[in-house]
Amino acid sequence: MRIVCLDLEGVLIPEIWINFALKTGIEELKLTTRDVPDYDVLMRGRLKILKERGLTLHDIRQVIGSLSPLDGACAFLDRLRSKTQVVILSDTFTEFAQPLMEKLAWPTIFCNSLVVDDRGMIVDYRLRQQDGKYKAVKALQGIGFTVFAAGDSYNDLTMIKAADQGALFRAPQRIIEEEPQLPHTTDYEEFETIIDEFLAKG
Amino acid sequence: MRIVCLDLEGVLIPEIWINFALKTGIEELKLTTRDVPDYDVLMRGRLKILKERGLTLHDIRQVIGSLSPLDGACAFLDRLRSKTQVVILSDTFTEFAQPLMEKLAWPTIFCNSLVVDDRGMIVDYRLRQQDGKYKAVKALQGIGFTVFAAGDSYNDLTMIKAADQGALFRAPQRIIEEEPQLPHTTDYEEFETIIDEFLAKG
Repeated sequence: MRIVCLDLEGVLIPEIWINFALKTGIEELKLTTRDVPDYDVLMRGRLKILKERGLTLHDIRQVIGSLSPLDGACAFLDRLRSKTQVVILSDTFTEFAQPLMEKLAWPTIFCNSLVVDDRGMIVDYRLRQQDGKYKAVKALQGIGFTVFAAGDSYNDLTMIKAADQGALFRAPQRIIEEEPQLPHTTDYEEFETIIDEFLAKG
Repeated sequence: MRIVCLDLEGVLIPEIWINFALKTGIEELKLTTRDVPDYDVLMRGRLKILKERGLTLHDIRQVIGSLSPLDGACAFLDRLRSKTQVVILSDTFTEFAQPLMEKLAWPTIFCNSLVVDDRGMIVDYRLRQQDGKYKAVKALQGIGFTVFAAGDSYNDLTMIKAADQGALFRAPQRIIEEEPQLPHTTDYEEFETIIDEFLAKG
């Protein structure tokens, strides 16, 4: 039995924080782990900004709900789900992802969650576990799946390398050069061909 | 993070083999593990009958494709998938389930697979692993999920008992009596209420 694990942001939907920053005009929310390498420091900073601006989860979800999946992503994912099982492995939060998951026709996603108070303010976040993408791939292998994994970022490399086969999709030039053994594509049709070849081996 | 694991046949769709037997009028295909307790003996018998009748996977899928999800199952599952992650854990075969998975809008399913020859005849079957439902629940717990599991049959009891919370849905009277500690319902609305209570604890 074969299964495909896909990263979410940059692969199927736009980057949530960057696009939220663009839509709201809040410059400081454009920072990513490239600027602030410690994820917890970065997230605490983001939550502090949301609090200062009085932005509730509801407000944020409305902005996220105005975003669309990447061009071609819905059709690509629909075709893939008719051929094999797909699980999206993401470091985002289920509460943020939800409006876009609906637009992708509710694929299964394993990600993290937020802690929200009575007034709807985000007060904390909860990682499902450390290195969740990698451990999800290992767990799927442990229950008899042969796994294909793909993503675009540094935080996808451990899951891609743990998988039986993998690829980079629309990755930055630096990662492509550092991982020359991984197939790379920026095109959904070519991406599907790579995955079809993996599925054909099953 | 919470997740719901559901059995497929009897919970969301009709029993595949029994309905295939009814549709084709092949009496011997009505046998289940209640009649032939050894699953491998049962399956070899089924594959022998299909071969004798010259029934290909394509023929079988056409019959299965004429079946529908149980009344109310699609709406129940759609609502559930908008609230939480759902994985269907089934002992059926992905090739059989597929026409009905499409009608359920492609939820993720972990099940087994068939070996099909060049002429489309089913020559063998492959279990993903022994006791696959139970092990899938344990694997999901291992990657940080709190799991709700529900089903209707004896082969669901190990996963239901391994889960953090569980229920029986449209189970035979005998199982209901043997497992008085498990909530039981035959109604999707009540089923959803039980699951909502589980989700509210997260």
